[in-house]
Amino acid sequence: MDLERYLSEKSELVNRTLERLLPEPEGYAKNLAGAMRYSVFAGGKRIRPAMVLASTEACGGKVEDAIMAACAFECIHTYSLIHDDLPAMDNDDIRRGKPTCHKAFGEAVAILAGDALLTLAFEAAADSPGVKMERLLKVVAELARAAGYAGMIGGQVMDMESEGVDVAFPVLESIHIHKTGALITSAVRCGAIIAGAKKGELEKLTGYGEAVGLSFQIADDILNVEGREEKLGKPVRSDKRREKAAYPALVGVVESKRLAEELLRKSLCAIEGFDEKAEPLRAIARFIVERRN
Amino acid sequence: MDLERYLSEKSELVNRTLERLLPEPEGYAKNLAGAMRYSVFAGGKRIRPAMVLASTEACGGKVEDAIMAACAFECIHTYSLIHDDLPAMDNDDIRRGKPTCHKAFGEAVAILAGDALLTLAFEAAADSPGVKMERLLKVVAELARAAGYAGMIGGQVMDMESEGVDVAFPVLESIHIHKTGALITSAVRCGAIIAGAKKGELEKLTGYGEAVGLSFQIADDILNVEGREEKLGKPVRSDKRREKAAYPALVGVVESKRLAEELLRKSLCAIEGFDEKAEPLRAIARFIVERRN
Repeated sequence: MDLERYLSEKSELVNRTLERLLPEPEGYAKNLAGAMRYSVFAGGKRIRPAMVLASTEACGGKVEDAIMAACAFECIHTYSLIHDDLPAMDNDDIRRGKPTCHKAFGEAVAILAGDALLTLAFEAAADSPGVKMERLLKVVAELARAAGYAGMIGGQVMDMESEGVDVAFPVLESIHIHKTGALITSAVRCGAIIAGAKKGELEKLTGYGEAVGLSFQIADDILNVEGREEKLGKPVRSDKRREKAAYPALVGVVESKRLAEELLRKSLCAIEGFDEKAEPLRAIARFIVERRN
Repeated sequence: MDLERYLSEKSELVNRTLERLLPEPEGYAKNLAGAMRYSVFAGGKRIRPAMVLASTEACGGKVEDAIMAACAFECIHTYSLIHDDLPAMDNDDIRRGKPTCHKAFGEAVAILAGDALLTLAFEAAADSPGVKMERLLKVVAELARAAGYAGMIGGQVMDMESEGVDVAFPVLESIHIHKTGALITSAVRCGAIIAGAKKGELEKLTGYGEAVGLSFQIADDILNVEGREEKLGKPVRSDKRREKAAYPALVGVVESKRLAEELLRKSLCAIEGFDEKAEPLRAIARFIVERRN
């Protein structure tokens, strides 16, 4: 299993589809379209779309059926970064080595570009002519729940409210599960739903997604301490500066790494029963814990 | 046709459903839930939901089938007001006679409350067990298009970019059609889609929605010049102060009123062929042009 090749092939497909999906920067609101494209094509790794597609494949589904849902997840992810970076939120100037959206286009356009990407995600998710309508509706509902109050946005608020506060371990875990885990779990679930996964398969993949989602944020926390700014494309040690709730500060780097490894084992264990079509999912789980950016 | 009674009955139904739909302000993200409720229950007239329901009724559909879609439109409308009021956008302190969301909850929570309401809209729109899935998917796609880049958000950007600039009449019309008209037209269309309207009916109702949508914004512009702050619950003459593109400034109040009347006639003409079940739609069209707040 050559993951690098897998991710690069899927990235290309996702980028081609996003290219078609995003509005052209021309005419009356060209600044808005420009800002949407600037952030979407800022060099993201397309991990979430790859997980949608890998999950569909693991369940015997077709990549082309899941490509719009995959793009929807990237739109949601990008919008969340744009809004997180705003002055009223994390006030970040640099993202992926480039000025953040509001630095490049101004705050008003950045807010609206985030709104437009969030909205576009649902337009994309609802639009896959080959897929049964029942499945598409489930994907829309699933995506909305994972991205909304009970998922990512709720986690974001918890995260903000934890700044400068001593949080207990279960609270930190809950923040990470909502802030990062919900969308990743949902990406895996939506891929499976599109492929028509049976209940048992969907449950196993949910377990996989939850473990991978949490390990993703722990790995991010570790990179924020140990990573190098050139590789990450964003400032390191910002968690400490902002007194953000993070694993290394609470349990130390060594224990954080042990927890990430444990989650990796848990995620692989959850999909043990799947055949070789789940190899990409397995490789992605390893990559997420071992990545350097 | 007693419109006051109709609107108050529909408002009550919409409010009861929103009450169930919105998260309770408790637990980890209670500030976020509080901010969402604060803005949703700030005394809005529920015009957009009423139009969804009236359109469903005009096509012989059931109100209960369209209630979730109706609430989705109110969520989108409220989110757009929260984000419009932000310091980076219109920087408004007062809305409906109360502090704006960011004044009451801070800017970060206001941004996220808007995001959460936008996301919730799609969760609601996808969730109407009694309605054919094909129709619900159409509603989701329709809502996303009307609220997104090609509709409301695009109009918002045009509006911002027109501040302090001399715009020609067709540009002003296009701003209003996108900023306000798209969502209202879509509310009427979605009500019809849920009722399973035939193509011809849907076209007529689209014509009605477009005329009413534009007349709504012209009436707003006129109220911004002639209205009284106590009745409107927001500052008057703000368009002039901000040099916003508006009908009275461009063609005068008298001509603006004439145009609004012309649009009213146009909207009534579009649905001439409908029977007495369309009376609420007719009364709403009149109310929108004649309202004092």
